Amino acid sequence: MTTAQAPEPTTGRRGRTARQAARLARTMEHLPYLTRKLPPVEVVSVEGLEAIEHNADTLLQEVGIEVVNFPEAVEIFRGAGADVQGSRVRFERGMCREIVRASAPRIFTQRARNPERNVVIGDPHMVLVPTYGSPFIHNLDDGRRYATIEDFRNFVKLTYTSTTLHHGGGTLCEPTDLPVNKRHFEMVYSHIRYTDKAFMGSVTHPSRAQDSVDMARIAFGNEVFENEHVIMGLANANSPMSWDFNMLGSAKVYAENNQIMLITPFILGGAMAPVTVAASATQTLAEALAGMAFCQIVRPGAPVIFGSFASSMSMQTGAPTFGTPEPQLVLFVLAALARRLGVPFRSGGNFTASKLPDYQAAYESAISFMATMQAGVNFNLHTAGWLEGGLAIGYEKFMLDEDQASMAGAYLGGVDLTENGLALQAMLDGGPGQHFLGSPHTLANFENAFWRSDLSDNNSFEQWELNGGHDAAERANAAWKRRLAEYEEPLLDQAVHEELVAWMDQRKASFPDSDV
Amino acid sequence: MTTAQAPEPTTGRRGRTARQAARLARTMEHLPYLTRKLPPVEVVSVEGLEAIEHNADTLLQEVGIEVVNFPEAVEIFRGAGADVQGSRVRFERGMCREIVRASAPRIFTQRARNPERNVVIGDPHMVLVPTYGSPFIHNLDDGRRYATIEDFRNFVKLTYTSTTLHHGGGTLCEPTDLPVNKRHFEMVYSHIRYTDKAFMGSVTHPSRAQDSVDMARIAFGNEVFENEHVIMGLANANSPMSWDFNMLGSAKVYAENNQIMLITPFILGGAMAPVTVAASATQTLAEALAGMAFCQIVRPGAPVIFGSFASSMSMQTGAPTFGTPEPQLVLFVLAALARRLGVPFRSGGNFTASKLPDYQAAYESAISFMATMQAGVNFNLHTAGWLEGGLAIGYEKFMLDEDQASMAGAYLGGVDLTENGLALQAMLDGGPGQHFLGSPHTLANFENAFWRSDLSDNNSFEQWELNGGHDAAERANAAWKRRLAEYEEPLLDQAVHEELVAWMDQRKASFPDSDV
Repeated sequence: MTTAQAPEPTTGRRGRTARQAARLARTMEHLPYLTRKLPPVEVVSVEGLEAIEHNADTLLQEVGIEVVNFPEAVEIFRGAGADVQGSRVRFERGMCREIVRASAPRIFTQRARNPERNVVIGDPHMVLVPTYGSPFIHNLDDGRRYATIEDFRNFVKLTYTSTTLHHGGGTLCEPTDLPVNKRHFEMVYSHIRYTDKAFMGSVTHPSRAQDSVDMARIAFGNEVFENEHVIMGLANANSPMSWDFNMLGSAKVYAENNQIMLITPFILGGAMAPVTVAASATQTLAEALAGMAFCQIVRPGAPVIFGSFASSMSMQTGAPTFGTPEPQLVLFVLAALARRLGVPFRSGGNFTASKLPDYQAAYESAISFMATMQAGVNFNLHTAGWLEGGLAIGYEKFMLDEDQASMAGAYLGGVDLTENGLALQAMLDGGPGQHFLGSPHTLANFENAFWRSDLSDNNSFEQWELNGGHDAAERANAAWKRRLAEYEEPLLDQAVHEELVAWMDQRKASFPDSDV
Repeated sequence: MTTAQAPEPTTGRRGRTARQAARLARTMEHLPYLTRKLPPVEVVSVEGLEAIEHNADTLLQEVGIEVVNFPEAVEIFRGAGADVQGSRVRFERGMCREIVRASAPRIFTQRARNPERNVVIGDPHMVLVPTYGSPFIHNLDDGRRYATIEDFRNFVKLTYTSTTLHHGGGTLCEPTDLPVNKRHFEMVYSHIRYTDKAFMGSVTHPSRAQDSVDMARIAFGNEVFENEHVIMGLANANSPMSWDFNMLGSAKVYAENNQIMLITPFILGGAMAPVTVAASATQTLAEALAGMAFCQIVRPGAPVIFGSFASSMSMQTGAPTFGTPEPQLVLFVLAALARRLGVPFRSGGNFTASKLPDYQAAYESAISFMATMQAGVNFNLHTAGWLEGGLAIGYEKFMLDEDQASMAGAYLGGVDLTENGLALQAMLDGGPGQHFLGSPHTLANFENAFWRSDLSDNNSFEQWELNGGHDAAERANAAWKRRLAEYEEPLLDQAVHEELVAWMDQRKASFPDSDV
C-alpha cells in the first residue's frame, strides 16, 4: 500500500523543532502524569458489581488457583491460611480481598532516574506507557520483520523524547538477535542508559527478575532502591485460574524487594474464559486477587497494580479481535471493581488486529483508547505502537498513537464550569451573527482552548495536495526518523554506568547463552 | 498512497454473499433501529447542567434571536408573546422551554415507504443515518472530484442495502451536475425510488421544502401523509443567535405539514461561539430552543429533534478539527440537556478532517463515534461517509464507517447480568488451565457472543499476505463495487411512480434552471 519514501515535513524543520521544544518545555512545567477530573464511565450498577465480586469469591473458594511447578508459592499461600490440596490452593470467601485491602497501597510513586519524571500511579492519575512484548516490528520502509536490539533502543529513544508517554515501559519489542536468556540485560541497560523515565524489568524467569532488580539497585544506588519503588514487573496469569513458576517466582522477587508488580490476567473470551463480559470480569478479578494477595503475603505493602487484558474472538477463525464493544465493556467493569478494591488499575491501549497502520488499525485503536481514557485507568500499557494483536510494534503506529494519545490530558480535564469556562459575558458582549475570533475571551483562551494533533492534517484539500498529499502513515514515517535523528542521550553518572557494565559483563559471562 | 485496483474479496464471493444474506435476514428479524440498555455517559453534574440552562435563558432574554429577512417569523414569535424590536426577538426566561415542553413529542415514528423500516426516534432508541451535504466525493479510483446525481444514487443504493444504516438520510452528496434550484427534485425522487427507507427533504429554500413535502405526499398518499410523519428537514442556525429566511421558512413548511424538523445549531468553537465547551453547549441550547419553539408555535405537536454540530478549531489555520476531546464533551453535555428538555437528540457521527480514508480519518471518526454511541444520541446523521470536514463523502469511507458502526447494537446492549451472562456454572465446571472453546456455555452463546466487523482483517499476517495484503481501504473499495453490482430496486407502485414523475416534470418545467 503506502510507499516507504519519507515525505518532507509539512512545515520547515526549524519551525517544527522550535515548536516541539516549546511544547516540551510547556509539558515539563506540568506534572509528568495526567490527572482526571472527568467522572469515570460506569456501565454496571453497584448490585451488578457485587454479583461479580460474589462470583469471583465463589471461584476462588470452589475452583481455587492451580500453582504450577512452584511448591514454595503453595507453602506461602498455606502459611497465610489458604486451603491447600497438592498444587491447588483455595481461598475462603473474602480472604484474598482482605489481604489486598490490608496492605496494598491505593496510590504510590514509581521513581524515575530523573526524579522530575517520577510517576504517581493510582487515582485520580493516569500514566501512559508504550506497548510491550512484540517479536516483530513494522514500518513503511521494511514492512514486517523480526525485532532487534537496535529496534528496542529506537523505541526507548522514541519513548524518551515523547511528550505524551510518561513511562518508559518494559519489553518494547523482543530483541530477537540476542540469546533468549540474556536479552533482559540489554533491555534493562537500554532503559537505564537511553532514557531517564521509569521502566519495567524482566519476568521470564525469577533469575532474570533478580538480575533486573539488581541492575536497578546499581542504577539508583542502595539508599533510593531500599526506600523507593524504582522498577516494575508484569505477571500474566495462565487463565483460567492458574499461576506458574516463572510468573509467581518473578512476582516474588519484585515484591520481596518492595518493587512494583503488575498482576494481569490475559483473557481471550471464549478460550480462557466463557464468552460473556461478566464472566471475563469475574475470572479476571479472581485471578488478579490471588496474584495480588500473593505479593502482599510475600511483603505487605509492596505496590501492586490490578491489571486486565481482555479481547474478543473471531467466530470464524478463533483469532483475537480488538476495538470491539465487548472488551471495552470488560474494561469499564474491571476499572469499577478496582476502584472498589482500592488498588491502581491497568488496562487498555491502542489495540488492533491489523497488520499495518490503516483505517482498521486506527478505528480499533481509537475505540480501545477512548474507553481507556474514560474508564479510570491509572497505568496504561500499550498506549503506542501495537499492531497485529501485539505480534508487532509499528514505528509509524507508535508515532500516530502517541500523537493521538496526547489528547488524554484535555479529555480527562473535563468540562470547565468556572466563569471563564461558562463564558456568559463573552456571549452577551457579542451580537447575533458576529464571530468570536477577535473577542477578548477568545484571545485570552485560544492557545489552550483546543487540543491539537501534531500529525493530523487539517489543511484544505488544496494545501494538503501542495504539501505532497501524504497520508497519516507517511507523515508518521517522516516523524519517527526526525525524532531519532534529533535524539540526545540523557545524563548518566559515569561511575554508575561503569559499575553497571562491569556487573552485567560478569553476569553474562557466568552462564552460557541459550535460546530458552 | 493506496492503489485503485479492486482486490479479490478475502473469502469467496459465494460465501460472502450467503453470509450477507443470512446477516440481512437476521437483522430484519429485529427492529429497524437500536435500543439502548447502557446508561448514557454523563460528564457534568446536575448543577452544571442547570448553570448552562440558566445562561441559555439569559442569552435568549438579553441578546435574543435575530430573524434575518423573514418578517412573518418575527410576527409568529410576537404572537406567542416574545418581545420584538425590529428583527430582534427576545424571550422571557423559560418561555422557549415551556413552549417546547408543552407540545413537542418525546418520541415519535418516522414512517418509511416500507413500513417494516419505520424508525422510532427518541429514547431509548438510536437511528443511524448516512452523512449529509458534501459537494465532493472521494474514492480510490477517482480520488476527489465533484459529486454528481449518479453518485447520489449510488449512495442511496448503498444506504438501502446497508444492514447498519436505519434511515436513508437526505443530501447524501450535492448533485453538482444539476441546476442548484432543481437538485431537490432528483434527490427526493431518488430517495423514493431507489430505497424504501425513511428520508429527508430539501431546506435550501421554503419553496424547495414545499416541493419535497408535496412529493412525499404523492409517494405516501394523502391518508398516510396527513396522519404520519413521513419526511424530515434539517435546519441550521446562523450562529451566533441568528435564524434566516431559508431555514425558518423551510422549518415552517415542514412543521405546518406536521412533518419532522431537525433543528441544529452548527458551531465552530472560537468562530461562532466562545472557545469553551460550556459556551458551545449554552449557545447551542439557546439557538435550538428558539428554533424548536418556532416549530411548536407554527404547529403544536409537530415533531422536532434537538440537534448539535460542534467542532473545534486549529489554532494555526482556523480550520475545523474533528475527533478532538472538546466536541465530544460538548456532545455529552448537550445529550444530557436534551434529556432534561425531553426531546429526541441528534449529534455525532464519524467525523474527520482527513482527505482520504487513512489512519487520521479512522482515529478521528472512531473517537467521534464512540462518544456518539455513549452519549444517548437518538438520531445520528453522519454515521457513514464523512471526509474532509464534510466537504467530501468517501465511497470507501462510507463502507468502513458503516461496517464499524454496526457495533453500536452490541455496545448499546450493555453488560448481560443474567445467569447466562454471569456464566458462573461454566467457570465452576471448567478447571484451572482448561480452555472454554468446547464448553456447552460457549457453544450455546458463541454465535452472538462477539460483534464482528465484515471488513476488518483478523487473520494471521501470513494469511493476510496470501489474500493479497490489502489495507482496509482497498477491501472497502471491493466491497462498495460488489454492493452496487448486486443492488436491486425495491418495489414501487407503478401508478405512484407515474404520478410522481408527471408532477415533477410539470414543476421542473414551470420555472427556469438557475444555479443560485
